[in-house]
Amino acid sequence: MYPFSEELIINRIKEVLITGNNEIDKVFTYILESNGKMLRPRLIFLTASLYNHKPEVVKDIAVAVELIHLASLIHDDVIDKSLKRRGRDSVNAVWNNQVSVLAGDYLFATAFNLINRYGLPSVLENITETIQTMCAGEINQMALAYNLDINEDDYYLKTYQKTSCLFASSSKIGALISSAPKSEVIALENFGKNLGYAYQIIDDVLDFVSDSQLLGKPAGNDLIQGNITLPVIYALKNEGYSQITKTLIQECQIPEKMDLLIDVLWESKSIDQSVLTSQEFLNLGVNHISTLANSTVRKELELLAYRMLEHYYKKIKKVNMIAKKGAVQKNGTACSLNY
Amino acid sequence: MYPFSEELIINRIKEVLITGNNEIDKVFTYILESNGKMLRPRLIFLTASLYNHKPEVVKDIAVAVELIHLASLIHDDVIDKSLKRRGRDSVNAVWNNQVSVLAGDYLFATAFNLINRYGLPSVLENITETIQTMCAGEINQMALAYNLDINEDDYYLKTYQKTSCLFASSSKIGALISSAPKSEVIALENFGKNLGYAYQIIDDVLDFVSDSQLLGKPAGNDLIQGNITLPVIYALKNEGYSQITKTLIQECQIPEKMDLLIDVLWESKSIDQSVLTSQEFLNLGVNHISTLANSTVRKELELLAYRMLEHYYKKIKKVNMIAKKGAVQKNGTACSLNY
Repeated sequence: MYPFSEELIINRIKEVLITGNNEIDKVFTYILESNGKMLRPRLIFLTASLYNHKPEVVKDIAVAVELIHLASLIHDDVIDKSLKRRGRDSVNAVWNNQVSVLAGDYLFATAFNLINRYGLPSVLENITETIQTMCAGEINQMALAYNLDINEDDYYLKTYQKTSCLFASSSKIGALISSAPKSEVIALENFGKNLGYAYQIIDDVLDFVSDSQLLGKPAGNDLIQGNITLPVIYALKNEGYSQITKTLIQECQIPEKMDLLIDVLWESKSIDQSVLTSQEFLNLGVNHISTLANSTVRKELELLAYRMLEHYYKKIKKVNMIAKKGAVQKNGTACSLNY
Repeated sequence: MYPFSEELIINRIKEVLITGNNEIDKVFTYILESNGKMLRPRLIFLTASLYNHKPEVVKDIAVAVELIHLASLIHDDVIDKSLKRRGRDSVNAVWNNQVSVLAGDYLFATAFNLINRYGLPSVLENITETIQTMCAGEINQMALAYNLDINEDDYYLKTYQKTSCLFASSSKIGALISSAPKSEVIALENFGKNLGYAYQIIDDVLDFVSDSQLLGKPAGNDLIQGNITLPVIYALKNEGYSQITKTLIQECQIPEKMDLLIDVLWESKSIDQSVLTSQEFLNLGVNHISTLANSTVRKELELLAYRMLEHYYKKIKKVNMIAKKGAVQKNGTACSLNY
C-alpha cells in the first residue's frame, strides 16, 4: 500500500466531494487548496500496510478519517472564533459561521457514507464513538475554561478527547481493516494514543513560543481563550513561580504581560519540562509497537512518529536560545515584577 | 409495532444519550424537555408496520432519524441565529453557538452509531445522502437569499432539500428495514416526499399568518431573513400585485410594511393559493400509497398525513376570516399605497 501520497488522498477527496452544487463546491475547493500534514491518513496507510489489506479500502477509509478531521477543524474554527487556519483565512472568515456549520456536517455525512460502502461496522463504531468523545471533550473544555485549579489529570483527559482519541482511532482502524491480530490492534491503538499526547503537548507549547505572525493569532492565544495547557500547569505547580504566573494570567490580554508570562514559562523550565513530557509520550508510543514483527513498515511508523515531532522540538530549542539571550536584557523588568 | 408512542422514543433517546458527562448531559436533558410532533419516527413506525419487522430495530432506527432531525434543528438555529425553538429558548440562546455546534455533531455521531449496530448499509447510505442533500440545500438557500427572481422550481428544489428529503427518507427507511417489495419502497418514498412538500408549504404560510408571540419571532421572519417562500412567489407572479409586493419587500424590516405585505398576500389570494398547493401535494402523496394492500396501517398512514395538516389548514382559514374583517378597516391605507 505505502508509499503514502498526499495527492492520492486529495484526488480521492475531490472525487467524493464533487457535488455538482456550485456553492458548496466553492467551499470545498477552497479547503483543499491547503492541505495539512495528513498525519491521520498516514497512520492508517502504515498500520494497514503491516498486514494483508485491500488498497482501495485503505485509501477510502483514510480519506474518510481525513474528512472527519477537516470537519472537526471547520467546526472548531466556529467554536474558537478563529479567523486563520493553516496560514490562510478560515472558512468562517471567508464565508461565515453558517456555511462552516453546514460544510462540516456535509463532510461528516460524506465520511460515514464512504465507510459504509465497505460494510465495516467495527470501523464505523470506533469512528462514531471517537466523534462523541471529541464533542463531549470540547464541551468539557469550555466548562474548564479559565479554571486555574485544573490539574495534570484534567489536562490529559481533555488532550485525549481533543487529539489523542482520533490518533488512536486512526492507528486502530488501519489494523482493523487489515485483520490484524487483536493484541496488535491494541498495541497500535496505544501507539496512536501516545503519539496524540506527544503531538498535542507540542502544539500547546508552540502556541506560546511561535511567532504570532506565523500562528495567525497572538502568542498565548490558547490562554487568552481560557484554555489552560501543560506549560501553564507546570508553572502554576512550581512554588517559586506560582504566584507570578497567576498574576500574569489575570492580565494576559495585555501583550506585554503575555510576553512576561512567556518569559516565566521559560525561566521556570515549564516549557522544557513540557517538551520532555512530550518526548516521554513519544517513546512510550513507539515502545508499544516494539513487540510487533520487525518490518520495514514498522520502522516507517517509528520514523513517522519521530520525524513528526523532531522538527518542532528543534524549533522550540532554537526559540529557547533566542529567549535566553532576550532574558538577559529583560531581567531588569522581570525583577521589578519581583520574580 | 404500532401504536407509536412518543414516550417510547424519548426514553430510548435518553438511554443512548446518557454520557456520564455532566456538561453535555445538561444540554440533552434540556433538549428532551420539549419534544416536537415526531413526524419522522411516526412515519418510520407506520411504514415498517406495513410489513414483517423487528420491533427493536424499527424503534432504534426511528430514534436515529429523530436524533438527526434534532441535530439539524440545533445547527439550523445557529445558522438562522434563532433564539427560540418550540416556544422556548434555543440551545444557542441558553448556551451559545459553540455548544450548539458540538451538541449537533454529537447527535449525528450517536445516530450513525445506532444505525450501524444493525448492519443496515442501505439505511445508512440513504441517511448520509439525505444529510448531504440537506446541507447542500441550506448553502444553496443562502446563495438565493433576497433574490426576487426565484421561481417555483427553485422553491421546490430548496423545499425538497430542506424538508421533503428527510420525510421521503423516513418513509423509505421504514420500508427498507422491513424488506418491503421494491415498488412499494418507491411508493412510500414518494408518499413521504409529497407529504414533506405539503408540510413545508404550510410552515412557510404559517410564518406569515401566525401570531408573532406564538412564533417567538416576528411574522414574516423568513422574508426578513431573505428566504423567499411560495406565498411571496405567487404574489410576485400576480400582475396586479407584483409591483406593490416588490416595494413592500424592500421595506419589510419595518413592522407596519410587513403588516401591509401580509395584507397583500391575503388579497392577492397568494396565501389561499399556497394552501391549495399544499393540499394538492398532500393528495398526491396519499395517492402514491393507494396501490398498497388496504390495511389498517395504510389507513393510519393516510390519517397521519391528513391530521398532520388539517389543524394548520383550519388555523389559516380562521386567521383568514379575521384578516378579512381587518381588511375592511385597512383598505384606506392599502389604497393610499395604490394597490
